This record gives sequence, structure tokens and C-alpha cells, in this order.
Amino acid sequence: MLIVMQENASEAAIENVIKFIKQFGFDAHVSKGEAHTVIGAVGSKMIDKRDIELLDGVKEVIRISSPYKLVSRVFKEEDTVIDVKGTKIGDGHIGMIAGPCTVETYDQMEATAEKLNDYGVKILRGGAFKPRTSPYSFQGLGEEGLKILKEVADKYNMAVTSEVMEVSQIPMFIKYVDILQVGARNMQNFNLLKSLGEIRKPVLLKRGLSATIEEWLMSAEYIMAGGNREVILCERGIRTFEHMTRNTLDISAIPVVQKISHLPVVVDPSHATGLRDKVAPMSKAAVAAGADGLIIEVHNSPETAVCDGAQSLYPEQFKELFTDLKALAAVVKKTF
Amino acid sequence: MLIVMQENASEAAIENVIKFIKQFGFDAHVSKGEAHTVIGAVGSKMIDKRDIELLDGVKEVIRISSPYKLVSRVFKEEDTVIDVKGTKIGDGHIGMIAGPCTVETYDQMEATAEKLNDYGVKILRGGAFKPRTSPYSFQGLGEEGLKILKEVADKYNMAVTSEVMEVSQIPMFIKYVDILQVGARNMQNFNLLKSLGEIRKPVLLKRGLSATIEEWLMSAEYIMAGGNREVILCERGIRTFEHMTRNTLDISAIPVVQKISHLPVVVDPSHATGLRDKVAPMSKAAVAAGADGLIIEVHNSPETAVCDGAQSLYPEQFKELFTDLKALAAVVKKTF
Amino acid sequence: MLIVMQENASEAAIENVIKFIKQFGFDAHVSKGEAHTVIGAVGSKMIDKRDIELLDGVKEVIRISSPYKLVSRVFKEEDTVIDVKGTKIGDGHIGMIAGPCTVETYDQMEATAEKLNDYGVKILRGGAFKPRTSPYSFQGLGEEGLKILKEVADKYNMAVTSEVMEVSQIPMFIKYVDILQVGARNMQNFNLLKSLGEIRKPVLLKRGLSATIEEWLMSAEYIMAGGNREVILCERGIRTFEHMTRNTLDISAIPVVQKISHLPVVVDPSHATGLRDKVAPMSKAAVAAGADGLIIEVHNSPETAVCDGAQSLYPEQFKELFTDLKALAAVVKKTF
Amino acid sequence: MLIVMQENASEAAIENVIKFIKQFGFDAHVSKGEAHTVIGAVGSKMIDKRDIELLDGVKEVIRISSPYKLVSRVFKEEDTVIDVKGTKIGDGHIGMIAGPCTVETYDQMEATAEKLNDYGVKILRGGAFKPRTSPYSFQGLGEEGLKILKEVADKYNMAVTSEVMEVSQIPMFIKYVDILQVGARNMQNFNLLKSLGEIRKPVLLKRGLSATIEEWLMSAEYIMAGGNREVILCERGIRTFEHMTRNTLDISAIPVVQKISHLPVVVDPSHATGLRDKVAPMSKAAVAAGADGLIIEVHNSPETAVCDGAQSLYPEQFKELFTDLKALAAVVKKTF
Repeated sequence: MLIVMQENASEAAIENVIKFIKQFGFDAHVSKGEAHTVIGAVGSKMIDKRDIELLDGVKEVIRISSPYKLVSRVFKEEDTVIDVKGTKIGDGHIGMIAGPCTVETYDQMEATAEKLNDYGVKILRGGAFKPRTSPYSFQGLGEEGLKILKEVADKYNMAVTSEVMEVSQIPMFIKYVDILQVGARNMQNFNLLKSLGEIRKPVLLKRGLSATIEEWLMSAEYIMAGGNREVILCERGIRTFEHMTRNTLDISAIPVVQKISHLPVVVDPSHATGLRDKVAPMSKAAVAAGADGLIIEVHNSPETAVCDGAQSLYPEQFKELFTDLKALAAVVKKTF
Repeated sequence: MLIVMQENASEAAIENVIKFIKQFGFDAHVSKGEAHTVIGAVGSKMIDKRDIELLDGVKEVIRISSPYKLVSRVFKEEDTVIDVKGTKIGDGHIGMIAGPCTVETYDQMEATAEKLNDYGVKILRGGAFKPRTSPYSFQGLGEEGLKILKEVADKYNMAVTSEVMEVSQIPMFIKYVDILQVGARNMQNFNLLKSLGEIRKPVLLKRGLSATIEEWLMSAEYIMAGGNREVILCERGIRTFEHMTRNTLDISAIPVVQKISHLPVVVDPSHATGLRDKVAPMSKAAVAAGADGLIIEVHNSPETAVCDGAQSLYPEQFKELFTDLKALAAVVKKTF
Repeated sequence: MLIVMQENASEAAIENVIKFIKQFGFDAHVSKGEAHTVIGAVGSKMIDKRDIELLDGVKEVIRISSPYKLVSRVFKEEDTVIDVKGTKIGDGHIGMIAGPCTVETYDQMEATAEKLNDYGVKILRGGAFKPRTSPYSFQGLGEEGLKILKEVADKYNMAVTSEVMEVSQIPMFIKYVDILQVGARNMQNFNLLKSLGEIRKPVLLKRGLSATIEEWLMSAEYIMAGGNREVILCERGIRTFEHMTRNTLDISAIPVVQKISHLPVVVDPSHATGLRDKVAPMSKAAVAAGADGLIIEVHNSPETAVCDGAQSLYPEQFKELFTDLKALAAVVKKTF
Repeated sequence: MLIVMQENASEAAIENVIKFIKQFGFDAHVSKGEAHTVIGAVGSKMIDKRDIELLDGVKEVIRISSPYKLVSRVFKEEDTVIDVKGTKIGDGHIGMIAGPCTVETYDQMEATAEKLNDYGVKILRGGAFKPRTSPYSFQGLGEEGLKILKEVADKYNMAVTSEVMEVSQIPMFIKYVDILQVGARNMQNFNLLKSLGEIRKPVLLKRGLSATIEEWLMSAEYIMAGGNREVILCERGIRTFEHMTRNTLDISAIPVVQKISHLPVVVDPSHATGLRDKVAPMSKAAVAAGADGLIIEVHNSPETAVCDGAQSLYPEQFKELFTDLKALAAVVKKTF
């Protein structure tokens, strides 16, 4: 921690700061600059930097240690690769996850999965518990939905991912799904994160609507701190003032995260944009920028979908997109 | 719902839209303008407006019904007044809630509560379960904290509020606290909201960091839809690009919410600004703008506080502020 | 400037950084912490900190000098007071500026000014050159508007403020107005700022829609660096994701700016909220939070106003508001 | 314009609204829904919708005509192609613009241009007048910079682009440059836009830091309304709460703009991210998403650059990137 004193700070003020931090078990290294004296507080104790900022003569306190450890490349240099039933995500392997927003019926899932399997998709998505802004909206099929999802996936030897909303649902999810999703609205549901740290299945952690990358990594840290090392980060758009797309997909988060963390980053262009005709260009952008995976909504019949049909691709659209994505991946030296 | 057709939309496109919405049980009222034909879709069914926006020739679909019902002044015209052990919040009564960020020890709570009681505060706050960005930070005393809080409050005949983080904690909270708080990060933890709809104690619902006012009201709607009509809204700052304050306290949310909803709106200047010397001006601003209450962090010894000491007022600072706030309240024709 | 090395930075990397900064004329003070080595770069030269951040082993470079000088309380401790024809703004004096959005006709200005003068307003506002988002909207009366403004103001012995949009307009403005306004969209029109630094009349500088407080102060620094020391800062709302108000009035900017700068801060609640019924609560909030002035739109007949009538107060509404504001000012120990 | 009445609006209120809009020359089409009466105001007059929103019983007024005309695909269906000395931008042709942030010396420009020309770049960029946040930063070489730029470009038969900051500079720019740039901070400098409408050279219009896409298009409309039809839009990042990149490059703006406007959209990854190692992934993302061009900072010796060296590519880095970009372009069926 570095404590920058104001230009006109007195010697007494400097002494007072040193005394204050020593009380908390820190050593003080003082260095005088042209205008500002800087005090380095050396130690590993926890202290709220604002407590020091309120002392007389202090201009600013700067934390220099990263708050995250386990998610960082300093802790683990090589890329983490998540292996889901033989499909790899990370370190040059781009994972493709596809399926409808919501599990509606066995037939709908079956019709969709059959096509996706044909196209080479090995991980199927589908919501069973839906976080909806309105209490009056369809809230999902619940456990029945998870059963359908698993039954269909088993038929095609696919893996399965679905969103878990609550601590008490975790044991149920473990029975049915291969990757547990945490939704954007639950990114800082810390009780849920802690409980997911105790299981041994991969967790796909969506970035919150207004979460900074640092906060997102800290939420991953919660899961890893519990002992679960299989975390997949998922960028799904951030809230800005722009309203022509539902959210603003932060493509630059991909290289930023990949530099500081070893965890794979996948991108959800369907929720970020909210409209079908924007899914293809944003999927391509994600792959070109180096994403480790995509999670794309595809429905066998979008116009009759219970939920988010407007952002779901038709199977044939997806097929064509997937072909382009493989060509783009080759340019950036990755493979699906 | 109003469907605005593009300027050059063909008759066939218009017919197709009409056919589409009739399938979903809507009647169609067509009116032709200078440039655009507008189709009014009359009915009460649920439909994703984007499904219509994807039809040929459609420029835009506009939802005209508010998504919220029970929270709205259309549903209930007069102000909701929350009565907590005789202290009123709403309809001209400004509620004052004060206390430390976190319950640390019996002595700390007792020392703080004694002063606050002297100053006329009737509702005590204190965290027992703390949502912390880092898994390595202090997470609160848990149930022990709630016990201390209640014991101290009982001594001074004060009411108590504390933050609940999880569905499974609700029965425990009901034993100890008079107002259950939902934190900003849990504003869209829908399972928690639903469960809080089933109890019969007031809920203080903080606005999420990047929540729109409409989303905030929808979360209140979740609680009210369950049958619990005692919801207090709490503005605590929104995330913007400005970093000289922790968040940007959205004071204009006060009159905006009061116009469309009957629920009381209280303001948390401590978390919004994150620094002690900004708490007084922002508290004054909130009262002048018509807030129905304040929730302010006060600690008997901020410099030794375990958490958020930097934004906690000293008891004497609070005393002086409270005096000013009463004078300001009189000008806007309200009382504490 | 402080250079924080990565945890695993080698001695060679540290040496390389030291060599690099010495080339640019800086001295290096090295201090080793538990995890990070920190190098203090002492000197007054200009260097882009990102150039150092790109060197091997560097985690982060932190600038510790404020980029602003003349606007800072370090440069000038006591409040700057702007005196406009005897009306003071700053240091406990709250300036009230009022008038219509746009100068429409002599009669309109006369009718409005007569009332405002009766109520004790001494500074009249009115736009002659209007920055409009659309090229097809009314762009103002131009010089004719300034003439009317001055003629009416002279009749009532009032001062006058109006927005200047271009360097070439400055000589014209100097003839007619007492305070030159810079609009939010021109806050970083640096050529305009430089030219305003060369005149000797007060400048009211609106904060840009997405400007940080630091950038706003830097724009004021441009004007002051030219020699013009009479700058009034004007907070007028920032752009956020919330759309129930036109912008989000950042009331906390008032105490934040007042702590770091000696310049007065006035607030424009009319443009920030965009609706008449929000002007009164936000004006009150601004005064309660310590604003040094207000600039409020008042029109003798808002429903026939050419522009922004919806956010203009009726004269009687303004009169009532002004009475309340005086009472609030007394509580915070200021006067109009 | 559609006027949505409140659920409980009286007949008298509805009549009053109709009377009001008729005064302004609009016809009224009334249609009654389940809950809301909607009044269509048919006509082409200008009216501030907020004036109607303030009438009794009105819930909301919705504008249905787009505010832009000339920039829209409704006005012109086929893509606009800008031809700069034989290099095409738009309709499948991706324009590559490259060069240093700032013109420093003849030798620097010559060394950079030589390489770029070798790599096949036909449009050279370089700043001569620099908009700087601080009045104490280097402000550019001025006209001397433009001369150097042109001299070097002529040697290699390249075209030239540079940023114009002021109306009075336009005649000078016309002598030296082929594309006039408008910087992000000047996107709503309406006097500048109007003057650029009167010339007959292409204008590259950067999106403002917090400008919505609609506002950006309206600024292009200003230029086109003056008669200049050669506008290139440039996305360069928007301001969000995320600070790990300088700005957030809004890649989704590319397909959004291309759907509603015929103008080409180019992307500036250098200013958006602010760091060299993010330029390559974001350039690739832009091309994959369908951008019509790129403007990339390249410097023959970035570590000694006067300005923005940290975000400038080395010539060899650019060369390698350009090769990848051409391969990506082929996948999306475009060419450089």
C-alpha cells in the first residue's frame, strides 16, 4: 500500500501516518519526491485504505496488491483447460455451447439437439429455472426441465449446462448437468458462489451487468477459494447508455482477462445483443478477438419459442455461422 | 402494445403483422399516419415484443402498459406508511435509521445505541451477514450478531434492521429483526424476493448498482406479489464513470419514484459516497428533495471499526447533522 | 510517479525500468515490499505512463501529482467569489440565475424579466445561439437575441448570461453579456476554452455529459491558464443508464469539487431533469448540499415556449420555490 | 407521435389533449385499448413531446419518426462508398488508414510512411492539431504538421487524413488533407459540423465518448444537410465504468449502424483501448463483425513517440496484423 501525502503535508502529519500504520502491524518506507512524500506500508494485514485517507495531510492511498490470487496468472501461469466429457475449453480449444433459452418440451429439445449434434455441437444449453424481471413471466419448468435436458443430451452423447439460482438447488443440478451456470444477476450472490466452491463440477460464471472485470474475477476467486478450480468466465454484455442493443458486448474484456487470468473466457452474444441478426457478427468478433468459447441460443422454431425467440438462431443460420467461425478460428490459430 | 411500421411497409407486411398478433389473441386497431402506419395490439396476453419487431416491415414495437402493478400509484393512490414499533416511514414522516456497518461486539453496539437513542433515533442498523467482494474479507458475526443487535435494541426500546442474504436465513431473521434488508447485489435474487413476499415484516429493498428505476420497482413487485405489502425502497447510489465518489447517489430518483409509486423511498448516503465528509451534504440533499427516510452509518469509534469506518459518522457529527436535517425537513413540510 | 513491479519481476527488469526513467530525467527511489518492489520516479518532466507500463515486469504506473494546478485549493486556499454587477457567487453567497431557455421576442423577455426582478433575481439567462441535436430544429435568434437580452436586462438593472458556441462569436458576446456560458457539448472544445482564457469576463463552464470531475477541472484549467481567473463551474447532469430523467444530476459533485477546488459550483436542475416538476426538488437538494448557485429556466408562458417549455417553471412556481430555497440556505448558513 | 393516456384518464383529459395538438396543426386519431387510450398525432410539425406529457392524464408521448433522414437507409438504400484517391471505403471494401498519433518531424513521418506504403496502406494519418485534456500538454505542430504530412504522402502517392478542431481551420485543411477528421470531443460542435457540410471533401466523424448511436447519426445528418454527402462514421470506444481499457469499444455499433444507415463505419482500436497489445485483437474483432475500415496508430519508433506511443504498433507488428486481417476479411466476404 502506498500513501501519497499532500504537497503541503507537515512533518507532524507524516509522523502521524507512520504511527497509525505501525499500530496495524505495517512497516513504513518513506520516500520524498519533488512535490509529494510517499509512504510505503509494507505488510500483509487487512486495512481499509479509506481509514488512512481520512488522516490529516493524506492525498491518496493506493493499493498495489491485486485482490485476487487463485484466478491470477501469477498463481498459475498456463491456461486452465476445462474438459467436459472430452470437449475442451481453453488454451486454443474453442468450446461451442448451443441450445434454446428455455427447456419447453421433450420434443422441442430433441428437435434442437438433433440438429446441433449433426453440426458438431457437443454441449447443449437450456434453462429450467429462469430469472425473470417480472414475477408475472414464465419462470421455467424447474426440475422437469433438467430431466428433459439430460435425457435428450444422453441420447446424443452431449454434455449439458443450465443456470442454478439458489444454494438449495445445487444437489439437484449435480444430478443432471455437467456445467452449472451462474447468471449475471447472481454474480455477487456470495452464498451461492461459496457453495459452488465446494462442488467438483465446472461453473460458468457470467459477468454482472455492471460488474468491473476485477469484481468478476473476485467472484471467480470465491468459487476457487472453496476448492473448485474449474471456472469458466462468460462475458454477456454490460449496461451502458446505448439502447439500440440490449447491452454492450465488451469484446475487449476477452484479451484483458486472458492477460491477467488463466481461466477461459467464453462469450454470450445472444443475451448481449438481444436480437438474432446481431448474433452472427458478434460471434465472429468474439472468435477473432480470441474467445475460448461461445454460448449461442438456437431454437428449432424460434417464432414459437416461449422465451427469447427473437434472439435465437434458426438451426440453419447456426450451421452457416458455425462454418464461418471455424474459418475465423483457423486465422487466429485456434480450433473448435 | 403499439406496432409502428416502417415508412415503406407494404400492405402485405401490415396484413401479416395483424395476422400474427391475432394468433396470440390480440385485436388489431390500425391507424395510418403521414409516414407510418401504427397497429395497436389490444389484449392482455404476454408476448415478447421482439418477436413482432422481427417481422417484415416493422420499425418498432412499443409496450404501453407498465410492467408493474401493485407498486404503482394507479393500484394504490395514497402513500404507503410503514409503521415499525410506532415509528412511521412515509407520507410526511421521515424515518431515521442509524448504526454501524457491522455488529462487532456487545459493547460497541451498546455504546453506539446509547448515543443514538439519546439523539432520538428509534431504528438501529447493523450487519451480521456481510456481502463482501473478496472471499478473504470479514464476513460478519452471523447469528451471534443478530442476537447482540436485538439485545441492545431491546434495552433502548429500538427497532432493528439487518441484511438478509439467503432464503434459508429468513426464519432466523424473523426472530431478531423488525425490517429485513435486501442488499444492492441481491436486488434481482428472485428466489430471495419471492420468499420475502411470503413473510409479514417490512422489507427494505436497496436499488442495484446498475438497476433502472423500473427494474427496482419490478423487484418490489415480486415481494408485493407474494402478499407482503410492506416494502421500503432504498436508493444507495448507482455506478457511473465518475470515481471521486464510490457511486453516484441518484437524488432525482426520489421525486421520480414518489410520482409513480406509493412506496416510501429512503436514502443511504453512507454507502453511496463511501466517505464520511460527504455523508452530511448528501443527507441534507436527500431530505430537501423529499426523501421518506435515511439510513446512516454511525459508529461509536469509527477509527477502530472493523468495516467501513471511513464512511461512518462520529456520534457527535451525527447529532449535529440530525439537528440540521430536522430544520430542513420543516421547510419541505415533513417531520422526523 | 510510482512504478509498481509485478510480484515475480526480476532484478534485471527492475534495473531496466530505472535505466529507462533516468533517460527521461527522473531520479529513481526503490523500495521493496512484501510482494512488490515500488520505484518512485522523482522529477517534473512529462512522460506517458503507459510507456513505462509496457516495460517488462511492470504491473502498474501511478501518477501522484494532480494534473490541475490553478483550479486547485493547493494553489489558492480561499473560495473564489465571482462578483457580477454586485451579485456575488461563492463563499457563502448563492447566486440565482433565471430566465427562459431561449430569447424569443422582446415582449417575452420583458414579461419574464419583470417578474424575476420583482422576485429579487439579479442575473438573467437566455439563449441566442442554441446547440441543437438536430439540424432541423430552431437554432436561436443569434445576435438579435443577445441585443434583446441586454436591452431588457438594462431596463431592470440585471446582469446577463448566454451561451457562446464558437471562437469567432466571442467579441460579439463581450458587447452584450456579463457571464459567457460554455455548454456541456463544448466542455472540451479546447480552442474555445483557450480563447475564453484571454478575455476578462466570468465564464460559466458546464460539465460535459460524460465528463469526469477531473476532466471538468482540467477544462477550467485551460481558461485559467490563459489568465482569466473568473470561472464558475456548472453541474448539469451526467449520462447514465437511467432514462426516467433526461440525465442524472450528480449532486455529490458539489461537495467533491468544493473540497479540491476554490471555484464556485452552480447547478442547473432544468437541463438535468428535463421536466418541470423535478426542478423544485432538485433545486432544493442542490442548495441543501451546499451549491454556490442555481441556474433555473423560467418562462412567462411555458406552454407557448419555442424551446424547453416543459422544463421551464411558471413565474409563480419559481417565486414559491425561491422562498423555500432561502429558508433552506439559512439552515446551511448561506444566503442568496 | 403517439400519446398514451393513463389508465384512469378522464374523457375531459382526452378531449383536452386532442384540442391541444390540433392547435399545433396535428390531426388526432383516437384508439381505445384494454387499459389505455392512445391518440395518434398525425402531422409534420415540430413539437416538444414533453409539452404534451405535462398535460393532465397523459402517461407518455412516443415519437415514431426517426429524427435523421439523409443518413438513413430509407433515404438511400445502397451503401455509400467513399473513394479517396482510388481507395474505396464501404460496400465490401475495407479501408485501412494508418500512421502515427502525431506528426513530429519529416523524418519520423517519412520512416513510418515508407513502411506503411510497403505493406499496402494507401491512407496515412497524423495529427497536427491535438485536442489535449491538459493545457500543459503538447498541442501539435499546427500547419507545419499538415505540410509535412502532405509532402510525405505525396512522395508515396498516399492520401492523408488529420483532425480539424475549429471552423477557422477548414480552409487550411482543404489545402493539405483528403479526409477531414472530427474528433470525439467535437462530435456535437455544431458550428464545425455545419461548416463541414459546405465543403466537398470526405469527413470522418468520430463518435463522442458518451454519444448514443442516434446522436452520432444526427451529427452526420448536420454535415449531410449542408450538402456534403461523403461522411465516414468512426467508432472509437464509449465511456463505461470499466477502467481496464481506456474506453469500451462498441463493436456491436458496426452491425447496428449498417442496418439503419448507408454510411460506412470504420473502427479506431488504438484510441479505444489505449494499449498496444489490445490493438490486434480488437482490429480483428472489428473486421470479423463487418467494419468498413480501420484507423490504426503505427509509429516507426513507438518508444520515442511524442504522444500515445504506448498504443502505437511497431511497423512489423502492423505488418503481421494486416496479413491476419486480410485472411479474416475473406471469411466475411470483404476485401482490403
